[in-house]
Amino acid sequence: MLVERAREGDARAVARLITLVESGDEVLPELAAALAPHTGRARVVGLTGSPGVGKSTTTNELVRALRAQGHRVGVLAVDPSSPYTGGAILGDRVRMQDHATDPGVYIRSMSSRGHLGGLSAATPQAVRVLEGAGCDVVLIETVGVGQAEVEVASLADTTLVLLAPGMGDAIQAVKAGILEIADVFVVNKADRDGADATYRDIQGMIGLGERGPGEWRPQVVRAVAARGEGIDDIVTAVDKHGGWLVEHGELRRRREARAAAEIEAIALGVLRARMGSLREGTGLAALAGRVAAGQLDPYAAARQLLDDLAVD
Amino acid sequence: MLVERAREGDARAVARLITLVESGDEVLPELAAALAPHTGRARVVGLTGSPGVGKSTTTNELVRALRAQGHRVGVLAVDPSSPYTGGAILGDRVRMQDHATDPGVYIRSMSSRGHLGGLSAATPQAVRVLEGAGCDVVLIETVGVGQAEVEVASLADTTLVLLAPGMGDAIQAVKAGILEIADVFVVNKADRDGADATYRDIQGMIGLGERGPGEWRPQVVRAVAARGEGIDDIVTAVDKHGGWLVEHGELRRRREARAAAEIEAIALGVLRARMGSLREGTGLAALAGRVAAGQLDPYAAARQLLDDLAVD
Repeated sequence: MLVERAREGDARAVARLITLVESGDEVLPELAAALAPHTGRARVVGLTGSPGVGKSTTTNELVRALRAQGHRVGVLAVDPSSPYTGGAILGDRVRMQDHATDPGVYIRSMSSRGHLGGLSAATPQAVRVLEGAGCDVVLIETVGVGQAEVEVASLADTTLVLLAPGMGDAIQAVKAGILEIADVFVVNKADRDGADATYRDIQGMIGLGERGPGEWRPQVVRAVAARGEGIDDIVTAVDKHGGWLVEHGELRRRREARAAAEIEAIALGVLRARMGSLREGTGLAALAGRVAAGQLDPYAAARQLLDDLAVD
Repeated sequence: MLVERAREGDARAVARLITLVESGDEVLPELAAALAPHTGRARVVGLTGSPGVGKSTTTNELVRALRAQGHRVGVLAVDPSSPYTGGAILGDRVRMQDHATDPGVYIRSMSSRGHLGGLSAATPQAVRVLEGAGCDVVLIETVGVGQAEVEVASLADTTLVLLAPGMGDAIQAVKAGILEIADVFVVNKADRDGADATYRDIQGMIGLGERGPGEWRPQVVRAVAARGEGIDDIVTAVDKHGGWLVEHGELRRRREARAAAEIEAIALGVLRARMGSLREGTGLAALAGRVAAGQLDPYAAARQLLDDLAVD
């Protein structure tokens, strides 16, 4: 069984499982059932930011630091903007060659391709595959700024948002709603002009947010990932946030909310697929014909369609 | 009854009905049932293009020309980019004041606000309201370029895409997938520099598309809407396309496909709302807790959720 081989550390089995997850293969429910007992323990860290901000470099250095602490690390590089092309962003082989021969690291680019629930359903399942393979930390790296990114970042326990000086990122972050999802900000390339201004900007915006007692105040860390500087500070901030999550019951709350969203996404995907197959048969086509002719209203038709869906 | 008053030409009743459609009111299924017998006959014309291309002016002139032919005309100005703000784009009062006192014209800006199925479900229902009120032509005007626009434009029998010289629109149109949905291109502001180049560009791109025998070849019309020039040519092109639609059985095919999409959107909206109410109760929350704890896989949970949904 693939799941057993993945659990024994077979990298090819892990890769194959994630491919199955991406493509929304029919065996997915079976795989998910086999994986479930081994999941729910890994810490999931999201890492996001605009192109050019240094995400890959930072991820690379974070993997190094986490490996030095003895963690087994999985990396999912997710491209929400390209749902169709497999392999996403950069090929796995060219990504982070530093860790290519380390058996304690799994690195994988992914896209949503055919998955019924889209990337937001495929990603947590891919995280479970990595957990099943023994990873106790999973990094999810996403590209770009926008709703899809916010969605994917929200799959993490702790979300890192990377900024760089002079990119107007602080303002962009507010616009894109990233301020709400960031637990830790990293001002990368902190040796460049304007780093102090970016640091102050983001601190200022964090200060404007209203927070109740015991609420998390986003940390801001300076780093020069390309030289390995500030990486330990990032790890410390992530650990601190992890402690806060547990202490306030927030880890459990977040994970349950994520599981609920995932279940919904899968369920809607299943229903959409069923509607598709009704379209092939007579059901939906016949209803649509009557609606188009003014013989039936679309709400009544939707009701009938839902009745048909329940019979299976 | 509102529907009866709308059928008698009461403009306030029409406005109220569209507001109900926008907001996804609970009485919608009942209204839709009352409207259904009066629908399926109006010609629906979509009109889209980048901001500044002259959509409002062109719509205004088209309404004038169609009124001169004795049609009763409805106009829906749809803003796909702002799902939350009611009233959309411009207030109805400032829009097309030329026709403000004409009882044969209904003009309405709309957004999707609370509608379960989003704009793509709300718009066809608003079209039915206008049909119910006696409109035999309905113009749907959409703003901007992008997926939402393509979606809304696809609700029409005939889609007009407006271009203007020197805006790089031809290239944009290809990128945004608009080339596939356009039945008639209008090169507006045709008295400006670059109009000939735009005309040639778009003709060239149309020429590149493969077409089977009997397939529609998109028409390209030049216009200066602000001076009322070329409007009759647009109407002629729309009529020609209308004739083609009927002749090739394409009108019925398009309308049935649209009705199918609409029924699906409503059905999915209903299901999403039901899932939301399950979230309030114990169902989804309990399942999510078990998935988060690794006691259940999300596919099995989705199956249980769907079983719960069917029982109501």
